[in-house]
Amino acid sequence: MHQQIDIPALLDGDRNALSRAITFIESNRPGDRESKWALLEQLLPHTGKSKRVAISGAPGVGKSSFIDRLGAYLIASGHRVGVLAIDPSSSNSGGSILGDRTRMTSLSAHSNAFIRPSPATDTLGGIAARSKEVMLLMEAAGYDIILIETVGVGQSEVAARYMVDYFMLLLLPGAGDDLQGIKRGIMEMADLLIVHKSDGDQLPLAQRTAQHFKAAMHLFPPKPSGVPVEVARVSSLQNKGIEEVWQRVMKYVDTTEKNGYFQRWRRSQEMHWLEEGSMQILLDYFKNSPELQSRLNALKSQILSGDTNPVAALHTIDHFIKKLLHD
Amino acid sequence: MHQQIDIPALLDGDRNALSRAITFIESNRPGDRESKWALLEQLLPHTGKSKRVAISGAPGVGKSSFIDRLGAYLIASGHRVGVLAIDPSSSNSGGSILGDRTRMTSLSAHSNAFIRPSPATDTLGGIAARSKEVMLLMEAAGYDIILIETVGVGQSEVAARYMVDYFMLLLLPGAGDDLQGIKRGIMEMADLLIVHKSDGDQLPLAQRTAQHFKAAMHLFPPKPSGVPVEVARVSSLQNKGIEEVWQRVMKYVDTTEKNGYFQRWRRSQEMHWLEEGSMQILLDYFKNSPELQSRLNALKSQILSGDTNPVAALHTIDHFIKKLLHD
Repeated sequence: MHQQIDIPALLDGDRNALSRAITFIESNRPGDRESKWALLEQLLPHTGKSKRVAISGAPGVGKSSFIDRLGAYLIASGHRVGVLAIDPSSSNSGGSILGDRTRMTSLSAHSNAFIRPSPATDTLGGIAARSKEVMLLMEAAGYDIILIETVGVGQSEVAARYMVDYFMLLLLPGAGDDLQGIKRGIMEMADLLIVHKSDGDQLPLAQRTAQHFKAAMHLFPPKPSGVPVEVARVSSLQNKGIEEVWQRVMKYVDTTEKNGYFQRWRRSQEMHWLEEGSMQILLDYFKNSPELQSRLNALKSQILSGDTNPVAALHTIDHFIKKLLHD
Repeated sequence: MHQQIDIPALLDGDRNALSRAITFIESNRPGDRESKWALLEQLLPHTGKSKRVAISGAPGVGKSSFIDRLGAYLIASGHRVGVLAIDPSSSNSGGSILGDRTRMTSLSAHSNAFIRPSPATDTLGGIAARSKEVMLLMEAAGYDIILIETVGVGQSEVAARYMVDYFMLLLLPGAGDDLQGIKRGIMEMADLLIVHKSDGDQLPLAQRTAQHFKAAMHLFPPKPSGVPVEVARVSSLQNKGIEEVWQRVMKYVDTTEKNGYFQRWRRSQEMHWLEEGSMQILLDYFKNSPELQSRLNALKSQILSGDTNPVAALHTIDHFIKKLLHD
């Protein structure tokens, strides 16, 4: 497999080489893993130089149109932008009704943008580990800004949190008037709250919402970065506020590089990757272990025929795994 | 540990016995696992007799007020109601700003309701396996209707899907006018779409939204249950539409018990539990393996000192796990 990937072309920014490498990395076969580690080790020195930003928010808040505008702005400023989605439900669902490409109309047409949907895998730890690797491949191919779109308001944000330097949370005007429905944990992850769709009839409400969140920020503990959470208003429809958002990112990077947090957090990202990646390796072996899978299938048949129950079956699996690990 | 749990009291519906059993089941110590399997095997014959219903929807859609109303209605009809949240972000965040008890004001005060937040664990598979077990304990304690509240719009719904007989998705008036932002996969899980907050100024919009979703249902494949997806409108504020919702659930249960899908799907739930539970056992061993953890910690130190990199470290872990499993 590995032989088919043209590493010099990938490092030179070739889209096809990058696509093939991503497909290879996303494949889940333990037999490919030696080649996978070899590929990643070769590419690792060429990674880490991008700015990594998460864009989060509930469905309907307009993440795609925002990313489309932000990406277009960054490309116009001379950057190459990689967009990666983390979507735990995509493995089961085939993704959104409208695909990423139709949702991001300006970006998807641009040669300096590379849009990749969420890797299809059946565990969230798998998505986290795989997404991290895909991000590194994009960096090796010269994408110097990585935008991670999270879908939903739960575990995918936790996964994204450990992949990025900066975390944006999009909100709707009015939607957060009493902070209800917005998870404290997600709020605490955010470096920037963006009141989106701040335009037209909604403008006054958006202004009040932004004021409200600014006032509410004292409810939250100080950020370990030393940079307080900020609140911005954006209209992607009118293309307003995009540049200001990016200036905040740049200011944040500058401040945290100087106070050392940026580098410390990058190390934390690596530690997290090591743990998630290790669990993923373990689960891959589990899924590909003929002994374990045949044992599992036999137990399933026994449950269906009424010869055992799920608790007794799990008890058996527990002993089997214990024996496997300690013998 | 197990000795402390008063099984006859639990089976008799004693809240303290149930709480202690849940706390014990949620504990993650491999040393407790023999007692855990023994407890579950004793209780298993007393489980499975409840109706299990998931209530899903984006933050702000009003899940808690809906569950509060639905639960109060069910208790008034003579049921005992267990409410369980599945919230992958709670382990990192400490939950919502307003706790479950303050959010469900009528239910939380009632002796025939038992409200339990999401189990704290650091893997989503863990949440799925643990939640399943907590649900069974509630059933053994005589709760004959289990409401599973999911938080977010991603993997927690997938976890809930495999725990319940019936899946409700709450929507806001207007929010789905173009189906944007609503994941196809989540839509496809739903047995009932509820246009919530169908009251006051929003009533006409809610009616249009319900019409829209009814018309859009032809976009979706037929349900394996044989029962088409239905659309309902509810106002929890005015306590309207609650009874109709429950009648739909009862009708669904009746139809699917007759066509055999109900029983088949319960078997699928058990198969899913076996797989998730097995992976959780494996991960528990991983987290509690002194050899693996000390290896991991040594590698972390080496990364921090620059003596290795995360890819090389994962490569080492891969070999270590392989050796552990095959020696």
